Amino acid sequence: MLIDGLPYRSIWVDDKKDTVKIIDQRKLPHIVEVVDIKSLKDTVKAISEMYVRGAPLIGVTAAFGFLLAMREDTSNQSVENAHECLINARPTAVNLAWACEKVSLKLREAAQDERKDLAMRLAKELANEDIQTNSKIGKNGFKLIKHLAEKKTDGSPVRILTHCNAGWLATVDRGTATAPIYEAAEQGIDVFVWVDETRPRNQGASLTAWELYHNKIDNKLIVDNAGGHLMQKGLVDAVIVGSDRTASNGDVCNKIGTYLKALAAWDNEIPFYAALPTSTIDFNMKNGLDIPIEEREEDEVLKIMGETESGKSEKINITIKGIKACNPAFDVTPAKYVTKIITDRGIIDPSFKGINSIKK
Amino acid sequence: MLIDGLPYRSIWVDDKKDTVKIIDQRKLPHIVEVVDIKSLKDTVKAISEMYVRGAPLIGVTAAFGFLLAMREDTSNQSVENAHECLINARPTAVNLAWACEKVSLKLREAAQDERKDLAMRLAKELANEDIQTNSKIGKNGFKLIKHLAEKKTDGSPVRILTHCNAGWLATVDRGTATAPIYEAAEQGIDVFVWVDETRPRNQGASLTAWELYHNKIDNKLIVDNAGGHLMQKGLVDAVIVGSDRTASNGDVCNKIGTYLKALAAWDNEIPFYAALPTSTIDFNMKNGLDIPIEEREEDEVLKIMGETESGKSEKINITIKGIKACNPAFDVTPAKYVTKIITDRGIIDPSFKGINSIKK
Repeated sequence: MLIDGLPYRSIWVDDKKDTVKIIDQRKLPHIVEVVDIKSLKDTVKAISEMYVRGAPLIGVTAAFGFLLAMREDTSNQSVENAHECLINARPTAVNLAWACEKVSLKLREAAQDERKDLAMRLAKELANEDIQTNSKIGKNGFKLIKHLAEKKTDGSPVRILTHCNAGWLATVDRGTATAPIYEAAEQGIDVFVWVDETRPRNQGASLTAWELYHNKIDNKLIVDNAGGHLMQKGLVDAVIVGSDRTASNGDVCNKIGTYLKALAAWDNEIPFYAALPTSTIDFNMKNGLDIPIEEREEDEVLKIMGETESGKSEKINITIKGIKACNPAFDVTPAKYVTKIITDRGIIDPSFKGINSIKK
Repeated sequence: MLIDGLPYRSIWVDDKKDTVKIIDQRKLPHIVEVVDIKSLKDTVKAISEMYVRGAPLIGVTAAFGFLLAMREDTSNQSVENAHECLINARPTAVNLAWACEKVSLKLREAAQDERKDLAMRLAKELANEDIQTNSKIGKNGFKLIKHLAEKKTDGSPVRILTHCNAGWLATVDRGTATAPIYEAAEQGIDVFVWVDETRPRNQGASLTAWELYHNKIDNKLIVDNAGGHLMQKGLVDAVIVGSDRTASNGDVCNKIGTYLKALAAWDNEIPFYAALPTSTIDFNMKNGLDIPIEEREEDEVLKIMGETESGKSEKINITIKGIKACNPAFDVTPAKYVTKIITDRGIIDPSFKGINSIKK
């Protein structure tokens, strides 16, 4: 997607310099800084310190980590070591383990002198696969947006509310929840996005609004409290969110606060869609409400990062010392409040039957 | 209520110094600064620049404004002028107009040489009336909390979620939504409060958490996104919020985001209570969804105030220039999602019949 009119992926190989490049997402939206990753150590740091985030992007970054490790040393021990280091960079990310298993298995099977080239091929394949998956999600979700556009009689754009960042920055390109939006805009449909701020980490304000702005998708930032009111006033045509993990009954686990928007969409008879790659479906998880929810540090609630008028990056306390906080990172939207699930393998019902229909 | 162990009201007369004192609420929670209001001009400034906020407190502050005006000049013209200045200090506040009408009418009827004493009496009466009203709300709401406590079998406290600040700081003392909580704590019931941050103005973080902390009510700050998840996990026993305006059908208008919590409470079969003085019921408004909703400036969404680690007050931008925002200040919770309305005249059903039963 575009930054200042130039096409970018969130990770790419600089063939001239022999390095892997990423955008340091910790500094967005105020500073766009491209960083060189030159070694396995750099890769582990980029993942663990959240230069990159978003399950699909983390997985692909790990694959490039193997490439950098193979450039240093192609031995079996080096493969094992890379696997060990990368998988522990963010132990809770499911896609990370999946990508590490996939790449290290193939490297171990290959002859030592082929491993460098193979690692490059595997990493590029994984990156391209991610883009293809998102492109399919986009094309499938586009049908739903087109349908909404066709029903319009008042000349207003199709107004989509989204929560957190399931945008191109969370993937290699296109995004998951944003893929249908980008597709619709490219196909000439007038779209507008309500961007939930998404406290506590503000991914809506710092990532989603920023990427939509750079890709010329009209949008407005709103506090997480506002969506229900906008739906009551008829200003939202659909909700599209991503998902970190979806259970086999169609319950959708996503960033904290998603459930509240699903309830409001349901109460106002507005479609609520979850857009996600099949790889994030947990076919063994029978009930979404059984998914363990990560509780993160209190400081994410008590403090906020931003930039002062003079351009200085600053972290401020929003309350006094002594106040405690509770910080669950995700919630689960029961399937009954999900209208449809948009996947790379088609649009499905949020039910055992629907989920089972795309299981291979 | 208490600040650092000492009892305070949010507004009081300093008889020695012949001034009216308020807490500059703009500086909370980081700085507790008591400010002298010495003139009508000071009073208008305190209201318009939001040194004081909360409908009940604004009304009482205006009453004290008349006292200060009468100390300067007891003429009819002075009464008219005070009325004119005060009512325009925050034109949308309903209680302000109500208090101004009430006080100015009585001053006009009185002989000129009685007006100074009368103004003092009226202001003090209004302040005491507010406390009595809140005390009644507290005693009525206490019954509901007591009932929840009696049903407990696991030894946990009664866990109440609240949104925004309908605390003692929004009134002269006790608060509206907080009155039942303070009452319950004083009666020996173990209570705990989940405090919604309440973006964009963060009244939960800066006012509610602060006042509960100073009054030794155990509480935790949460982002506005978290409440639904906590309810799903069985960690919320009731929701109690205030209301800025309640329609005759029982629809409750309150700070933006209240509606989302009501939906989640409904979905999880948790009681949702609105605690409010009868004076905020609009008996002429048939349908809450017809209440016009104030849209406030974008900057409240785009920027956040707080204090840096070094103790400096700072306003930071959470996104880049060029991003637009939308900032509705209130939303309406349909009566069907309100379990009961707690008023100074009793606990009523959120219906025409219920509302009508307390109309005098």
